[in-house]
Amino acid sequence: MKLISKFSRRGIAAVAMALLAAVANAADPLPSWNDGATKSAIIAFVDKATTEGSPDFIPEPERIATFDNDGTLWAEQPMYFQLFFAIDRVKELAATNPGWATKEPFASILKGDVKSALAGGEKAALEIVMATHAGMTTEEFEQVVKDCIATARHPTTHRLFTEMVYQTMLELLSYLRGNGFKTFIVSGGGIEFMHPWVDKVYGVPPQQVVGSSLKTEFKMEGDKPVLVRLPKINFVDDKEGKPVGINSHIGRRPIAAFGDSDGDLQMLQWTTAGEGARFALYVHHNDGKREWAYDRKSHFGKLDKGLHEAQAKGWTVVDMKNDWKVIFPAEAK
Amino acid sequence: MKLISKFSRRGIAAVAMALLAAVANAADPLPSWNDGATKSAIIAFVDKATTEGSPDFIPEPERIATFDNDGTLWAEQPMYFQLFFAIDRVKELAATNPGWATKEPFASILKGDVKSALAGGEKAALEIVMATHAGMTTEEFEQVVKDCIATARHPTTHRLFTEMVYQTMLELLSYLRGNGFKTFIVSGGGIEFMHPWVDKVYGVPPQQVVGSSLKTEFKMEGDKPVLVRLPKINFVDDKEGKPVGINSHIGRRPIAAFGDSDGDLQMLQWTTAGEGARFALYVHHNDGKREWAYDRKSHFGKLDKGLHEAQAKGWTVVDMKNDWKVIFPAEAK
Repeated sequence: MKLISKFSRRGIAAVAMALLAAVANAADPLPSWNDGATKSAIIAFVDKATTEGSPDFIPEPERIATFDNDGTLWAEQPMYFQLFFAIDRVKELAATNPGWATKEPFASILKGDVKSALAGGEKAALEIVMATHAGMTTEEFEQVVKDCIATARHPTTHRLFTEMVYQTMLELLSYLRGNGFKTFIVSGGGIEFMHPWVDKVYGVPPQQVVGSSLKTEFKMEGDKPVLVRLPKINFVDDKEGKPVGINSHIGRRPIAAFGDSDGDLQMLQWTTAGEGARFALYVHHNDGKREWAYDRKSHFGKLDKGLHEAQAKGWTVVDMKNDWKVIFPAEAK
Repeated sequence: MKLISKFSRRGIAAVAMALLAAVANAADPLPSWNDGATKSAIIAFVDKATTEGSPDFIPEPERIATFDNDGTLWAEQPMYFQLFFAIDRVKELAATNPGWATKEPFASILKGDVKSALAGGEKAALEIVMATHAGMTTEEFEQVVKDCIATARHPTTHRLFTEMVYQTMLELLSYLRGNGFKTFIVSGGGIEFMHPWVDKVYGVPPQQVVGSSLKTEFKMEGDKPVLVRLPKINFVDDKEGKPVGINSHIGRRPIAAFGDSDGDLQMLQWTTAGEGARFALYVHHNDGKREWAYDRKSHFGKLDKGLHEAQAKGWTVVDMKNDWKVIFPAEAK
């Protein structure tokens, strides 16, 4: 009798475990995505790539997924968040750069007129980056970025920038990793601007970040080796640069790529041109109410050629308004 | 009675499992290393870095170990193996480059006089690299490297180059990974020369390789995106370049670094200058019988300043002759 009750208890436990496992498998891996064609396309791709024996099966080491950052993992309006950082730095550094009061693009920034400052186009933007991102050691820069990320707030939502990541994309990153994918960020933004915080925010370790960079120089300060950030562009990880950066840094062609702008087009082309199962997705910002609505004419995150090509090639396009139940993590709580 | 025998069988199984685990823990993780100060130093470092509660404990994501390749993971005499590859390529490409018959450094190579070809120093070496490593797509280059690695043999040992990796270092890579380390290669050699084979040979995936590179250009060949290798140096991952490459590619300072030449000195300095437990090791090639004996005056893998600094700073120096029971994997069988 004692024996029977022991076995039946064990039997019940076994059934319970099996049920739990079934529930875990059945649980929605993308709860902030509305059911529909987009969500189904993602899940169908992951299923076929990970089902052993499937003609589209891809061994785990080759499951490389690359994500753009601005506009794909976090918001990018009214301008790239790294630009807010640069502008804050101009204000901080103005005291030791008195000449800036009369020198563009700095003078306009100091007057609070960012629009005029950026009217100088690429040249102005470059000058701002060089003045604010170079001329210090990598350790000093890391500390400045950490301070900014911990305190700076978005001008209209008043949220920390790291609270303006997309809940849907966090779930997607985690879903892919749970299926043996390695997730990489491939961003036009500065690689060292991302290194200090992406692990905590996205679960992507710094070694899985590809980005734009300045040249750095190794030297000894007395007994201490330092790396100094020089005011010289080293690499621009945008457009044609993205496949170049991926090839050098990852050494494997991704099987899935995620972007939101024309700056990601070459990455999506490069990814889908490989053999075997492939997946390309564009986030289309069409939700002016909960986020921002922009595409072909936007200054930041312009999506024009890419939208054409996505339609022609049958890539997955996220209709943010209808595909995303939740945009930012705060709304999921 | 039946119940008792069941429990005692289970009891025996439990004891057996515990014993097996103890044996596994006690088993020598570095069987090709002779017992002594070097082996003890390695094991002591790994123990303290991985023992929770130890003042030197290092969380897993920060356990980054970087390894030079030439002379540290595989041999580098009588010259870097990538140079044999380049010279083979010169011979293959000579048919379509008739001018080379009278043009240095190619003419000397074609006459079988590599020494004269390399007498032109850095300029000559660069010309050879550009002529043999550029002017094709990354996919074409990958195939050429794969073919070479599968067939080319060392001039004196007649072994495949990948059979001339160090058994001791393979064990060390595996021991570190078993203790939660991420192992990276940081080599002066070409990053795309290493990408195709390092995973298979060292268990290091391509995304964990930092190396020298040529510029590549993304373009469309009709409908097909390709990356073309240009005859322009992009980055030299040697000496001061190693910390620069590590900082950009890994985004974290290593806690352990392994090298064999002055080209690795800055990597070892950068690694040991960080806070907390650190480990630096130089392989000293002093075994002219089983491998090669060279240091301060060698053309390839010169170890001079580094040896001074290792002695001054108390870094671990491998006495290859006495510390390594086995050099190449074939001897371990």
